[in-house]
Amino acid sequence: MKTPFVTKPQLEEIIRTYPTPFHLYDERGIRENARAVNAAFAWNGGFKEYFAVKATPTPAILKLLREEGCGADCSSLTELMLAEKCGFRGEEIMFSSNNTLAEEYRLADRLGAFINLDDLTHVDFLEQSIGHIPETVFCRYNPGGVFTLGESKEGFQVMDTPGDAKYGMTRPQIAQAFRELRAKGAKSFGLHCFLASNTISNEYYPELAAILFRLAVELKEETGCHIGYINLSGGIGVPYRPEEPANNIAVIGAGVQKKFQEILVPAGMGDVKLCGELGRFMLAPYGCLVTKVLHFKHIYKEYAGVDACAADLMRPAVYGAYHHITVSGKEDAPCGHKYDVTGSLCENCDKFAVDRMLPALERGDLLVIHDTGAHGHSMGYNYNGKLRSAELLLREDGSVDLIRRAETPEDYFATVVW
Amino acid sequence: MKTPFVTKPQLEEIIRTYPTPFHLYDERGIRENARAVNAAFAWNGGFKEYFAVKATPTPAILKLLREEGCGADCSSLTELMLAEKCGFRGEEIMFSSNNTLAEEYRLADRLGAFINLDDLTHVDFLEQSIGHIPETVFCRYNPGGVFTLGESKEGFQVMDTPGDAKYGMTRPQIAQAFRELRAKGAKSFGLHCFLASNTISNEYYPELAAILFRLAVELKEETGCHIGYINLSGGIGVPYRPEEPANNIAVIGAGVQKKFQEILVPAGMGDVKLCGELGRFMLAPYGCLVTKVLHFKHIYKEYAGVDACAADLMRPAVYGAYHHITVSGKEDAPCGHKYDVTGSLCENCDKFAVDRMLPALERGDLLVIHDTGAHGHSMGYNYNGKLRSAELLLREDGSVDLIRRAETPEDYFATVVW
Repeated sequence: MKTPFVTKPQLEEIIRTYPTPFHLYDERGIRENARAVNAAFAWNGGFKEYFAVKATPTPAILKLLREEGCGADCSSLTELMLAEKCGFRGEEIMFSSNNTLAEEYRLADRLGAFINLDDLTHVDFLEQSIGHIPETVFCRYNPGGVFTLGESKEGFQVMDTPGDAKYGMTRPQIAQAFRELRAKGAKSFGLHCFLASNTISNEYYPELAAILFRLAVELKEETGCHIGYINLSGGIGVPYRPEEPANNIAVIGAGVQKKFQEILVPAGMGDVKLCGELGRFMLAPYGCLVTKVLHFKHIYKEYAGVDACAADLMRPAVYGAYHHITVSGKEDAPCGHKYDVTGSLCENCDKFAVDRMLPALERGDLLVIHDTGAHGHSMGYNYNGKLRSAELLLREDGSVDLIRRAETPEDYFATVVW
Repeated sequence: MKTPFVTKPQLEEIIRTYPTPFHLYDERGIRENARAVNAAFAWNGGFKEYFAVKATPTPAILKLLREEGCGADCSSLTELMLAEKCGFRGEEIMFSSNNTLAEEYRLADRLGAFINLDDLTHVDFLEQSIGHIPETVFCRYNPGGVFTLGESKEGFQVMDTPGDAKYGMTRPQIAQAFRELRAKGAKSFGLHCFLASNTISNEYYPELAAILFRLAVELKEETGCHIGYINLSGGIGVPYRPEEPANNIAVIGAGVQKKFQEILVPAGMGDVKLCGELGRFMLAPYGCLVTKVLHFKHIYKEYAGVDACAADLMRPAVYGAYHHITVSGKEDAPCGHKYDVTGSLCENCDKFAVDRMLPALERGDLLVIHDTGAHGHSMGYNYNGKLRSAELLLREDGSVDLIRRAETPEDYFATVVW
């Protein structure tokens, strides 16, 4: 059972000012979750969660997370610009990119951000780009092969194929990168690795941590380099379906702590600071897409047409992703009707739900499409000339702020040469 | 074998003014193809190809097609606005939409566009929206079930499942819609149907035409309504892979003519005017994405990183679509090296090609990614804060016009509330 963080009376009040569709974020949920993440890793004195800006690149959200002690994980020039404008400074910014441009390295360096190198060749490229090598540099590791976490207690299997992923360095390359970087002046090193996306398993982060912790011990012995940071990156997911179990961040934190005590502490590396680059886990459940039912259509199937479309939320259309839907005010009504919930794109994939059992819908019903807080608005496009929706923030005191306005035709035509 | 429409010396000249990446369109190819389409259907006095604006919603392209006698097929408010600003007037505009807003019908009506109704309930909704029913109205048909064209001469099978598609009306509904529309004042009717996307078979359009022609004869007999137009919509595709056969539009036109003679003429309906809503066939081969090789990476696979990414061309990333790649200036070099050609998104799917055999690449090589003229730039997004590229038009005289500028960070931040 998924319960929206906003009630029908609240939504009816909101739409008097802000017409549907819009993404709505929940300040309370974001703050409470961020605190839970920080509490789960408080045992590691230097822990910092760098929010994956790509998930929700909206200033009000970033500022709120910064107030909770989070940093910003940026992957591009504009994300670095955004972090700077939102007040993130120096080592509050992690720059994890790939196939990077010189101007991106230059801005990251000017901001004093941590720079995470994706490839061995970027040791030289970074130096050419910024004229020196920073004191602290991160390197991204790719273990290759297939990563299998096996059957977890919840019955989920996590599998991914790092060997087919474009990211990171091989084991020999990472040792070589450390040596080259040290020769060029680096004094402290970070390790980064990403193995799987959106895992719903409390065992993924500890397993990844163990891989990185062992690697850190080996690299310290092999190269003599001082490893100051280990970046566990992202990968902790959320249950999009109501029947899926949620991750327990306290259990995850304790699981990582156990590996830390087992592997790093005996090697005299108990001073290593941990980092995260969570996006989905930080934001997805605390955002929803609110959209109004416009039309019904009965042909070979039953369709409910809404005023949002894939321009506002692309995951169902392009990945077939499940997003739960609650009909606001009908939370307790029986789900006795089967609908395809459709947007208006001239693309048959523009369906928020296929064969979804819902309460009987009426024109004007407000649908809450859950878990759109991450990779929702940020993945929007303008296909079919559709305009991307606004973003609103539901404050803890119940007030609502417009944090991104809806696009207008003028925005859509901004780059056109008439 | 696919040969770019632009040579290396031309590209080297272009990039002195316009940095990569950019989409480049070929005026000559666009015009010649449009003329071939019009010639193939010249036997039908009233034929008009309404270019599917969603494929390439760029004014210079639309104006060029208008000069060749094409209309504009619009699916949204901004596409209607765009058509108007590009000089399309009245019945030069076809408005084929679904899950439509009242304001969209109002603009279509104000422009005097042909309106194509997707659903029976929109008979009333259109009347409520614009206060009357136009003299000519189109209705979209959905035959349901599974559509199979069978094995064509080229060995391709076309199959789609209209019964699962959100579009159009059932057979009984379309007769009812005609009667209701006539009772409300409509005098002339159009029929529209879309059964399959990107077919590479000269038999698809004639087969679809036969279905619609038979339906038209039946509906005329059943309802007495005058059917003035039959809209064959889109669906004629292009061969993205070099080994695939191309459609022959002259053969397709003759195939439709045969059905027209067999079915419509004997029924006294030889005055029916045909319409098309082609997008891909009109533009895809006459556009390419030009991008520069920035980085090489060797881990478990060989990667060539380029300065374009999925923000500029999403089809490979989200649909796994094949786009052929030519290395400019190495057109005749042996393809002895295997690469993944990657963009810089923090998404592993951001690859323009996987395990692609290419000539040995060097930093600075210009890659021509073929067939991006339709559903290329128009499907771009800003994920990871990436900025969408410029669009250029290679004129018949060899000069180059900037027809859409590249996005800037200011564009990206335009809707943000700081």
